[in-house]
Amino acid sequence: VYEGALQDLIDELGRLPGVGPKSAQRIAFHLLATDQVDVKRLAAALVRVKDEVRFCATCFNVAEGEQCQICRNPRRSEEVLCVVEEPKDVVAVERTGEFRGRYHVLGGALSALDGVTPERLNVASLLKRARDGVDEVILAVNATVEGQTTAHYLMDALAPMGVKVTRLAHGVPVGGELDYLDEGTLSAAFKARRSL
Amino acid sequence: VYEGALQDLIDELGRLPGVGPKSAQRIAFHLLATDQVDVKRLAAALVRVKDEVRFCATCFNVAEGEQCQICRNPRRSEEVLCVVEEPKDVVAVERTGEFRGRYHVLGGALSALDGVTPERLNVASLLKRARDGVDEVILAVNATVEGQTTAHYLMDALAPMGVKVTRLAHGVPVGGELDYLDEGTLSAAFKARRSL
Repeated sequence: VYEGALQDLIDELGRLPGVGPKSAQRIAFHLLATDQVDVKRLAAALVRVKDEVRFCATCFNVAEGEQCQICRNPRRSEEVLCVVEEPKDVVAVERTGEFRGRYHVLGGALSALDGVTPERLNVASLLKRARDGVDEVILAVNATVEGQTTAHYLMDALAPMGVKVTRLAHGVPVGGELDYLDEGTLSAAFKARRSL
Repeated sequence: VYEGALQDLIDELGRLPGVGPKSAQRIAFHLLATDQVDVKRLAAALVRVKDEVRFCATCFNVAEGEQCQICRNPRRSEEVLCVVEEPKDVVAVERTGEFRGRYHVLGGALSALDGVTPERLNVASLLKRARDGVDEVILAVNATVEGQTTAHYLMDALAPMGVKVTRLAHGVPVGGELDYLDEGTLSAAFKARRSL
């Protein structure tokens, strides 16, 4: 409905995840009213992310060099591997400040529906790392059907290696009200109850 | 929390209206997984919109040349002016297919809170156009406090010119249920009731 360049931008923005036609229009008009230098900085950031961001050769986290920040850090223990689905999960675990080991990013979770097989995830490299002297593998996958399927698959694949495999505890979220909790979580919290 | 270019992009995206930190992260990872050529097309569309899109010299709608599509169209009547707040309102009115006149885009609405005075809107040019032989000025501003303030201001400013000034009707939206309607709209619909 708009002329040339403006409609092109609205179309391009509308392809981004979570950006509907109304948001795309709103963002486009916002950019139209923004200083050219700021818009150019956004455009440059887009191009740079494709040029500069790669995946870590060791753990497949996002990285600017051959290896990510965490794999480059000699103070992180190599004996414990935390397996996550996506790079954003690395950030989530790092935020807790609880974990001082290394990560392994699968790049997704197994899904028969979406055709995600173990070969399409970074599983072979995980098994190789687990074999090369790791004490514990923590499966920090999502508590979704796909995540749990992946956890079971990895548990079976890691079993012959004699490495300790753990998963995150299920339970009541801190600050959460029981009333609002789904049955699955509440029943898991009951089963895993601890004596005080 | 991410390295260099990825965090830069997340920061830039997070500045866009309606894009929170979570959406910015989601869009950034989406782009990371997108073909380079597609990301470059988005970046180019951003730069082009600033280079190519201007505001129409006559009506201040968005335009790629000196004048917008509508002002360039000789079949649009010059006798009726439809005054709107923003270019997106031009699109909304055009979608109805009801209006064959010209537009005047104010570039916003009066707001004491945000310091938007008549001088910061395209008011002087509207008064000039109204003076130069226009039969009717339709005030198609938003039904917000700011829009209505603007409508009253323009009504007073246009009064001495002897031009007919109209505004959009208030009423029950087509397909709307009375039950869900706010009192203001319903009372306006009552006052403007028509005999069948």
